[in-house]
Amino acid sequence: MSDTEAKPAVAPLPAVLGALQDPIRLEVVRRLANAGGPMRCGLTYEGISKSTAAHHFKILREAGVTEKVTIDGNTHLQLRAEDLNTALPGLLDAVLTAANEAAE
Amino acid sequence: MSDTEAKPAVAPLPAVLGALQDPIRLEVVRRLANAGGPMRCGLTYEGISKSTAAHHFKILREAGVTEKVTIDGNTHLQLRAEDLNTALPGLLDAVLTAANEAAE
Repeated sequence: MSDTEAKPAVAPLPAVLGALQDPIRLEVVRRLANAGGPMRCGLTYEGISKSTAAHHFKILREAGVTEKVTIDGNTHLQLRAEDLNTALPGLLDAVLTAANEAAE
Repeated sequence: MSDTEAKPAVAPLPAVLGALQDPIRLEVVRRLANAGGPMRCGLTYEGISKSTAAHHFKILREAGVTEKVTIDGNTHLQLRAEDLNTALPGLLDAVLTAANEAAE
């Protein structure tokens, strides 16, 4: 069973850039992109507390970068790649290319 | 006569995104891109003080997004488009496309 929260619109460019400019949030997005689908929240970060992670997830979600998906009662995170590509063409790909290169 | 300051390397992705996520700095970058060359600093922004502008210019310069160029004794700003495209392929174009669309 899958249940998805109502999605806000993708935020304007400055807010999306603001969401992505934090190294922890950028790493969350990179992992989600490489997973290619929903991930358990706890697998998207390391080295920070759950409450700090929740703060970062909120910023990503409010910018329209990610969404929460509940799968079998467990909260997952999912990248809104298609919505981002529609709203801000080319941005996500450029960011992911650079982030993956930096992570190598 | 043209004289250019020593250029720092383009900063890592989070710092470049951090430089671009501010609406004033984003507008400076958009104007510089649309000018296609050096611009007098004062033409790149409006509605803020000179000292606030200087603060924003410093962040852009330190991220490797812009450089100062002195032309006939006057300080100009110039976008480091080529350096950005080499360091972070596709990012500047995606940002400018969205910023120009939002400005229309």
